[in-house]
Amino acid sequence: MTVEFISVGTEILLGNIVNTNAAYLSERCAALGLSCYHQSVVGDNEERLEETIRLALSRSDILILSGGLGPTKDDLTKEVTAKVFGKKLYEDAHTKERIQEYFQQMHSGQVTPNNWKQAMVPEGAKVVDNHNGTAPGLILEENDKIAILLPGPPNEIKPMFEEDIAPYLNQLEPEGIFSKMVKICSIGESKAETMITDLMDTQTNPTIAPYAKTGEVHLRVTAKAADEEAAEDLITPVIEELFRRFGDKIYTTEEEVTLEESIVNLLDEKGMTMTTAESCTGGLLAGRIMNVPGASGVYREGYITYSNDAKERLLGVKRETLMQYGAVSQQTACEMARGVAAAAGADAALSVTGIAGPGGGTEEKPVGLVYVGCYVKGHVRVEEFYFTGNRDKNREYAVARALTLLREELLKN
Amino acid sequence: MTVEFISVGTEILLGNIVNTNAAYLSERCAALGLSCYHQSVVGDNEERLEETIRLALSRSDILILSGGLGPTKDDLTKEVTAKVFGKKLYEDAHTKERIQEYFQQMHSGQVTPNNWKQAMVPEGAKVVDNHNGTAPGLILEENDKIAILLPGPPNEIKPMFEEDIAPYLNQLEPEGIFSKMVKICSIGESKAETMITDLMDTQTNPTIAPYAKTGEVHLRVTAKAADEEAAEDLITPVIEELFRRFGDKIYTTEEEVTLEESIVNLLDEKGMTMTTAESCTGGLLAGRIMNVPGASGVYREGYITYSNDAKERLLGVKRETLMQYGAVSQQTACEMARGVAAAAGADAALSVTGIAGPGGGTEEKPVGLVYVGCYVKGHVRVEEFYFTGNRDKNREYAVARALTLLREELLKN
Repeated sequence: MTVEFISVGTEILLGNIVNTNAAYLSERCAALGLSCYHQSVVGDNEERLEETIRLALSRSDILILSGGLGPTKDDLTKEVTAKVFGKKLYEDAHTKERIQEYFQQMHSGQVTPNNWKQAMVPEGAKVVDNHNGTAPGLILEENDKIAILLPGPPNEIKPMFEEDIAPYLNQLEPEGIFSKMVKICSIGESKAETMITDLMDTQTNPTIAPYAKTGEVHLRVTAKAADEEAAEDLITPVIEELFRRFGDKIYTTEEEVTLEESIVNLLDEKGMTMTTAESCTGGLLAGRIMNVPGASGVYREGYITYSNDAKERLLGVKRETLMQYGAVSQQTACEMARGVAAAAGADAALSVTGIAGPGGGTEEKPVGLVYVGCYVKGHVRVEEFYFTGNRDKNREYAVARALTLLREELLKN
Repeated sequence: MTVEFISVGTEILLGNIVNTNAAYLSERCAALGLSCYHQSVVGDNEERLEETIRLALSRSDILILSGGLGPTKDDLTKEVTAKVFGKKLYEDAHTKERIQEYFQQMHSGQVTPNNWKQAMVPEGAKVVDNHNGTAPGLILEENDKIAILLPGPPNEIKPMFEEDIAPYLNQLEPEGIFSKMVKICSIGESKAETMITDLMDTQTNPTIAPYAKTGEVHLRVTAKAADEEAAEDLITPVIEELFRRFGDKIYTTEEEVTLEESIVNLLDEKGMTMTTAESCTGGLLAGRIMNVPGASGVYREGYITYSNDAKERLLGVKRETLMQYGAVSQQTACEMARGVAAAAGADAALSVTGIAGPGGGTEEKPVGLVYVGCYVKGHVRVEEFYFTGNRDKNREYAVARALTLLREELLKN
């Protein structure tokens, strides 16, 4: 079956936002065995939207529209799609109730009248609950054509797709596509790819496709098979081969497990606790770890120490060290890691100190220079990095490398 | 004049890469005063590419194609566009020489025969030199329609667009598009919209378009005018009207200024410092503030205090408070804010304590319940929120609300 995407939104046409939804939907639908030959973007304009929908339905089996389901007058996706399918809109009691509850839970006071527009759904449409916003997802089926309407915000479309739309699409395509994600750290993307070029070139079922993520490499192993068991028979030998090549650099083969979650699990298994002391990343590292549900079992407290005074007072970094080597130095990173472990009484600790930019760089210590210290049970390892991105990117990379470093050290213990 | 983009490449259809070229071209063309109503993505397939080009030329004045200009057989953009325009290809001596030089400079040794494919250009086309790769840009003009072919790699398309394509487009369209962004906090999207429905309905030049961002509302005011000065004359009265309606809820009218940056600036103006004590947001709040270049001037240190022990030891929260009211309570948030201000010796402080989920909720204290404390010069204000998202979203909202709260309190001082 073929699928086509229409992203609706003037903000995409104006270049105010990058169309990451299309990339997400493309990747997921490809993994579900659907062929995609066309994608388009159109603004919140009735006539052009209608033409675009009609063209898409004339050449593809399934049409996925994202965006334009908001409460305001210029949100037209639902209205125009219903018109093309010849369906009237009616107020869906269940959705109205859900929106009401959503606002009550938020204690946002009055629901404004335009919010009720989101409870209007086309006759005969399947309504998909939105657990992260007010606009419901909608599925319309007619004459072997399917239109799926999804909300635009990435934090709404992704959970809805994973929970309800992917299973729905999966039952449409009898030969299923099954995939496993192999997630790798401690190795660069190019290096990882050269290590599996032969597999990528020769494998047709399953296929192996690499995706780069900041500081990580993800390999999706995808098989086409009659059922999950048959797919697993195809996928398992490939995963075993990947383990032979990458060893413990593979931190998970579970789709939803993140690097930080694998580390929290590792600490939990070992009965260890951890803490963090951050300068240039200023809380981002702690934030990523704390995003793991239950991280509080292994992470009890952490410190953001931007000033030298805070590094001395809270972490016990020696004044001479700061004076002689500077705040951004191997020595300071080392004392920060040791000091924060002591302050928090933790078994493991990460420290980050660096120059994220745009200012603050010198010839000797350029923007992008970051030291990461890792303390595990008395031993400290410090790594030096030269990142080449902007402030955001440098901080994101520093966090990724810190997590990788901790994982490597934990595996040694 | 209208412009339309076609991005050519199977890697976009498969979701292997995000289509950032489209966002870049959209933004640049909007700024050049061109209206864009359609964008599409199509793979390296002759038939579908031809159909897509013909459709685009039937409805838009200018067509910009990106990608598919490479040296391999499956790169078809140039061949198919030439066919649609009824033009033959010939070998361009200047381009052949440039490609030869490029390879010499790169010390890449032999030019492979398929590289000469890139020296073939359609009859009558303007050839635009590529200073960062081998494929030249091409401009075809015929019967009031224009097709511009650009290479796919971002590091090739961007300099080529800035140096040659933007000036070319500029002489086609004398009127430009200019816009200002009005960023608002302390008010919901629906509420904000109902406050300007009349303006949105009646304004045509400039127009007002709202965009929601977590905890904020952004209004883009866009005018079409001969030059920047004339545009400002149109935009200024609208901005003044928005200030009359939203007052100091508008935190900036600068495109690139974020809420956290406006707060850092506010603190800086007042000569005040701030700190944070985070439980459920675990560093995210500090991370957002520290993302502002130069935030270190007002933010020196911060604390992540997940455990009760850390709240007591680092912030001086009373044990009785934790016992009687719990860690997630108005009272604890209040003592955290006061305590962290004292610990860090800061003039202002934010504290966050809540249940981000998915676990940890009770009937009395459900997942999504978050208390934010804001200390400014001796006074503490605590707000209670009930968020309804997943763990990620609840933490993101808590951070947004905390920043808003601090801004409100700072404005009172």
